[in-house]
Parts: sequence; structure tokens; C-alpha cells
Amino acid sequence: MKRALIIIDVQNAFYDDSWGSRNNLQAETNISHLLSLWRASKQNVIFIQHISQNPDSLFYPENHSFQIKEIVQPIDGEMIITKEVNSAFINTALEDTLKNKGITEVVITGLTTPHCVSTTTRMSGNLGFTTFLISDATAAFGLVDHNDHYIDAETIHHSSLATLHKEFATVITTSEYIKNFIDR
Amino acid sequence: MKRALIIIDVQNAFYDDSWGSRNNLQAETNISHLLSLWRASKQNVIFIQHISQNPDSLFYPENHSFQIKEIVQPIDGEMIITKEVNSAFINTALEDTLKNKGITEVVITGLTTPHCVSTTTRMSGNLGFTTFLISDATAAFGLVDHNDHYIDAETIHHSSLATLHKEFATVITTSEYIKNFIDR
Repeated sequence: MKRALIIIDVQNAFYDDSWGSRNNLQAETNISHLLSLWRASKQNVIFIQHISQNPDSLFYPENHSFQIKEIVQPIDGEMIITKEVNSAFINTALEDTLKNKGITEVVITGLTTPHCVSTTTRMSGNLGFTTFLISDATAAFGLVDHNDHYIDAETIHHSSLATLHKEFATVITTSEYIKNFIDR
Repeated sequence: MKRALIIIDVQNAFYDDSWGSRNNLQAETNISHLLSLWRASKQNVIFIQHISQNPDSLFYPENHSFQIKEIVQPIDGEMIITKEVNSAFINTALEDTLKNKGITEVVITGLTTPHCVSTTTRMSGNLGFTTFLISDATAAFGLVDHNDHYIDAETIHHSSLATLHKEFATVITTSEYIKNFIDR
């Protein structure tokens, strides 16, 4: 069985104050821990990096905010796939890459839980990959709904995970994944 | 501008007690109202019908529960697209159908908010369609998260809508959509 660790949009852009209040500040530390294990076992790591053609965007490649955060910087030989929408599977080579490498299990981490992480997790499950979403290796910001009602980051995070668990993915913590699945 | 009304999985299957407690029992009435307006203006309606190859499933085509609910029954000449996963865009002709017909605006209704409706709305927006999600023409059931914590239907519904609004779609009520958008 071959598996890939997917690290979505862990970019300096998400340091920006405009996102508001965030939950789970430990997400990057947990991702870094998983990344070390993946590198040690020489399994596939795929970094997803959001890109925008708009020079005013935090995701414009000339801006420092586009760069992947230092704590999970890719090293030589690791794959980076850029995407322009939330789903890492739309208009990218991700699906073909996974299939061509014979990868059947996808382990998803990154930012943010309700948007790019949720959308990528949904498509991963629906495309037939055995999918794990690491609950404490992702994080959310608070959101305002269509009635101008604010929903805090923790509520968005937990309800997003509940909508994914058992329907699209197995939602599991970093330590549970390592304990139960890393040595298969 | 051409638009399509998408009616997702409004099937007898969702009458089954196994789903637990549901919010917004008016969803089907609101969908029926939109359907009447669409038929009157001869615009495109696309029914999405979930199908399973498992004879024990509520979505197995021989079972009565597979059928679309009486209140929004398709009539002769209306298009029905079956799907086997949550997203109506995966392994179906939906994207090609919309593009071939020159449809640029997609108006999404149906069941259930956090699963098939959310996933289809995300892909619709990410694939480039102008997307509306009708907040009171969809509904949710309560869900149990990976910590065995129950989240009620109303919380799942509203947080799901918040994760979609402005990122993938404009979330709007039936009456607001009719008032502001139907006569363009």
C-alpha cells in the first residue's frame, strides 16, 4: 500500500490579520511532525500551494506571503502542485499523479478546514482514494454567514470535520494516526 | 444568460428514520416553488438522483426509496442525471451538459446540506459556474463527529452554509432569489 501526505496551503498568507481569529495554532507543528515521519520512511509528500494571478493577492507568487511557511518548507525533490481554486484536484495534476504512482491512501493536512481542506478531502474520497483527514493538523478562521451572523473558528472547525467523517474520510488526530496506521 | 435549477437527491430515501432528526422541513415546498417558476419560464431543470448498486441500499433503483419525492417529480423531457458519490460532478455528464447548453449560472437545491449539496456547490463554484445555493431549499440531519459528539441538524446546516457563502456560492433564500434574480 502506498500513501501520500498532502500539505495544503501552509503559506505565509495565512499570517495576515485579515483572516481574523483562528483555532488550533498547533496545526503546523503537527504537520511538521508528520512530515518528518514521511521523510524518514521515504514515502510521498505532496505540497499544495495556492496561487493567484492578481498582484494584490496574498497568493501572488511575487509576494512573500505566497511562500510556504518555514516550519514545513519543502526540500529538494519534493513535489509542489499549485492550484488556483479551493480544490487541489481541479485543473491540477494531483489525481493523475496519485494514480500514476500507485498511491491509494491520501492523508490530508493544511489550511483551512472549511475551504480548501474540506473541498480537497471531499473530492479525494469521491474519487476513490482511501482518505484520512488529520483533525489537529488543520485549522479554521471564523466566518460570517449570509445573515451576517459570525460563527467562531472552533465551531467552524468542528462542524466541518463532522461533515467529512465517515462520509468522505476517516477523521483522526495526529497521534492516533501515528499509533494506529503509520507502521502498516 | 442561461441558468439551471439543480435539484439534488430529493428522494424517498430521506424519509427513512435512520437519518435521525432533520431541520427545515419546508425545503421540498421551496424547491417545488422554484421548480414551478423554472418550468413557467422554460429554463433548464436538472434532477440529480443518487444511485447505489447495493440491493440493501435505500438508493438501489429497484427500491421505492430510490424514487424522487412526489412533490418535485420530474415531468417528460426534464433531465435526470444519476450519481454514485456525493458530488454531482464526479463521473457524470453534468459539467459537459451545462457547458454544451451554454449555462453559466447554477442554482442549487436539495438534500443534504453538508454532504451532496455542499460538495456539488463547492465543485460548481470551483469549476467556474456562477453559483447560488438556496438556503431554505436544502436541509441537514444531525451528525456524530470523530469524538462521538453529536452536532444537531440546525448547527450543521448553518455552519455548512457559512463555509460556502462568498467562497463558492452566493447563499440566499428562495424569496430573495425570486425577488432579486428571477426576472433578469
